[in-house]
Amino acid sequence: MDSRASSAPRVVIVGGGFAGLSAARTLRRAPVQITLVDRHNHHVFQPLLYQVATAGLSSTNIASPLRHILRRQRNATVLLADATGVDLRRQRLILGDGELPYDFLVLAAGATHSYFGHEEWSRHAPGLKTLNDAIDIRRRVLLAFEEAERETDEARRAEWLTFVVIGAGPTGVEMAGTLAEIARHTLRGEFRRIDPARARIILVEGTDRVLPPYPADLSEKAQRQLERLGVVVFTRKMVTGVDARGVWLGEERIAARTLVWAAGVAASPIGRSLGLPVDRAGRVKVGTDLTVPGHKEVFVTGDLALVEQDGRPVPGVAPAANQMGRQAALNIIRTLEGQPHSAFHYVDKGSLATIGRKAAVAVIGRFRLWGAPAWLAWLGIHIFFLIGFRNRIVVMLDWALAYFTYQRHARLLLGPPSPVRSAEAGEAPAHSLTHRSS
Amino acid sequence: MDSRASSAPRVVIVGGGFAGLSAARTLRRAPVQITLVDRHNHHVFQPLLYQVATAGLSSTNIASPLRHILRRQRNATVLLADATGVDLRRQRLILGDGELPYDFLVLAAGATHSYFGHEEWSRHAPGLKTLNDAIDIRRRVLLAFEEAERETDEARRAEWLTFVVIGAGPTGVEMAGTLAEIARHTLRGEFRRIDPARARIILVEGTDRVLPPYPADLSEKAQRQLERLGVVVFTRKMVTGVDARGVWLGEERIAARTLVWAAGVAASPIGRSLGLPVDRAGRVKVGTDLTVPGHKEVFVTGDLALVEQDGRPVPGVAPAANQMGRQAALNIIRTLEGQPHSAFHYVDKGSLATIGRKAAVAVIGRFRLWGAPAWLAWLGIHIFFLIGFRNRIVVMLDWALAYFTYQRHARLLLGPPSPVRSAEAGEAPAHSLTHRSS
Repeated sequence: MDSRASSAPRVVIVGGGFAGLSAARTLRRAPVQITLVDRHNHHVFQPLLYQVATAGLSSTNIASPLRHILRRQRNATVLLADATGVDLRRQRLILGDGELPYDFLVLAAGATHSYFGHEEWSRHAPGLKTLNDAIDIRRRVLLAFEEAERETDEARRAEWLTFVVIGAGPTGVEMAGTLAEIARHTLRGEFRRIDPARARIILVEGTDRVLPPYPADLSEKAQRQLERLGVVVFTRKMVTGVDARGVWLGEERIAARTLVWAAGVAASPIGRSLGLPVDRAGRVKVGTDLTVPGHKEVFVTGDLALVEQDGRPVPGVAPAANQMGRQAALNIIRTLEGQPHSAFHYVDKGSLATIGRKAAVAVIGRFRLWGAPAWLAWLGIHIFFLIGFRNRIVVMLDWALAYFTYQRHARLLLGPPSPVRSAEAGEAPAHSLTHRSS
Repeated sequence: MDSRASSAPRVVIVGGGFAGLSAARTLRRAPVQITLVDRHNHHVFQPLLYQVATAGLSSTNIASPLRHILRRQRNATVLLADATGVDLRRQRLILGDGELPYDFLVLAAGATHSYFGHEEWSRHAPGLKTLNDAIDIRRRVLLAFEEAERETDEARRAEWLTFVVIGAGPTGVEMAGTLAEIARHTLRGEFRRIDPARARIILVEGTDRVLPPYPADLSEKAQRQLERLGVVVFTRKMVTGVDARGVWLGEERIAARTLVWAAGVAASPIGRSLGLPVDRAGRVKVGTDLTVPGHKEVFVTGDLALVEQDGRPVPGVAPAANQMGRQAALNIIRTLEGQPHSAFHYVDKGSLATIGRKAAVAVIGRFRLWGAPAWLAWLGIHIFFLIGFRNRIVVMLDWALAYFTYQRHARLLLGPPSPVRSAEAGEAPAHSLTHRSS
């Protein structure tokens, strides 16, 4: 079947996120053979992952198979594999079970959350970077309400009804706002012994305000909108401990059964495997042409790259990843045409963070928006950029229905059978349910 | 919160499938307190599970949270728990972690596939009864094509491209027909080294024809439609062995990496736990009023019940389950009103099995349909009975798009990371991928 194998230069792209796909698409007419390597078979529209975690969208709404996205691009192949390192000298990508030679390499393996050296916290406070993460968090949130309904001890019930989101960047703010909506609206009337609206949603931030990269006045507006939804915001609080029953903030403890981690940045370990300079988060320092020192054929893009512009790092957002992927591809084309690389220049199209129904903040050029106008801008932009026509239609329908009914249709507990009272450290002995008859 | 706890009779229903929900809804105005117990938090529209397994529908399209379905029924509570047995004398349902007293009990825990005493086969040939099963099978099917794309040895590649469905009842026929469609249409053009249309789909049946409960002429029509789609049908073949690399049919072996089990019936073990007469499949023999011998307060319904009518057992289909659930509830109401139980009478509204695009067979009263008319009847009926308005709309949209584009949007591999070459017994050592450059 591989009779088309030619002497065309081999471009290997690691990662099917925004940066990797943008690089592959930019090369669609180039005389190269592209292999896109990813551990997952699908591209995920990450800005909407929190909607899957909070049961507003189904995982199929925000993801598309990579093969399907690239099916018409005859110079591109998708390889489902785990890239573990790079042999820069021999020009080979090291996979879990083999290796792949390249003439050009584009690393776009992304980043995940950082637990600041406490990886053991991840078990109790999962992050939100993949569809599996989102389904796991959805499961924990839904089960917490089920457990609260069964619990007879008031203090334990309060633990199940306390949700702590750690980190008040865009993801943390979106999670906290949406959890508050679920508790106050979506689940209304569905339980018989608890009132879901009594759930406490706590958002913990280490710096002095929510959404630290935003202008201070928008941070303040975001915090007020969160509080109106019922979220308790703690700023200047560092998490010093995490376990199955809560978090420590220095001397202070919050007893909570459901924790979500949305703090810090840790770049994919493949960055460090290059043996080149990286920053504390593991992002690879690249030149203005996005290549690594001494290797004009190796590009690093997206959240894995540390690119400075005007003295500040380019932010880890989807538009920046798109632009970097495109620039890396353009530089590959320039090399093939015998031209020198051109420099990457990030065009900031603005920032948007949503908080809840008709609650958001946005910076677009010189304009600052908040409340309903920011929220409408957020809706439109996210639907517009969702990959796949079908997903756009279905997401619009889901959101329209969700808006008018407050319902969230994706509230399915999936995973191992018998989810309740599953093996959990420190679980008290099972109690009888016979009290129900008294 | 339980201040409403009253002296109203306690009705405990085990299972949130068609029978259990039908019983709960029939009791909506009765002066009882209902507890619906299920291991899962959602009702699944089982007749469409195969669509999730074959990536045509997302799991959220065919399932609804039980709490949501019953949210307005104030006399009903949902309890997420594992029912393990019944203490008939003390009138208590035994749960994994407690017990629940009842005045009336409706067992509607359903059935699963039977491996005829070879439970170890289930690991290699999963059945299709829950959403988790469907997601697991979807994962296996999609990964098989990925593995075939990476495989360089022709014989091993053929193993990955062989799919065996065991059992040619309605589920097996639907699975085989849809797998053939995926191979021939959906995946067309997405792979670079394999031609998915070369996949072999084999349907194995122990009796002498597909769809054994149907009239013989419709079985023949169904088989011809399957063969036109490219399915190879083996009848009068008993599976005598199953392993990770294929199945044994007596002396004959089919090398295949993906097996789906759709044979036999094994009722929920809670039926046997009663210590009352059951049939070979574990179904509980009930009287005409659906109660068990000696216990007028204990009803068994749906696939868990063995009810004879006109000398033949009532079939294990959704309409029969609905009708039994309703009858059990009516008999509870009659008891409360001081009237004797009335007898269950199954009204057969017809049978329908789908095979693929415009391919189906149906028996409706005296009419027999096949081909496009049967398929349209099947479509209409299934959409009509799907629980939830939203799901009806989304499923219609999905199907309309799927029909015109041959696409299946739910092709997401979910589950543990690094799915390829996961720990599998008998896996050969990892091979190098450097051949790609040659």
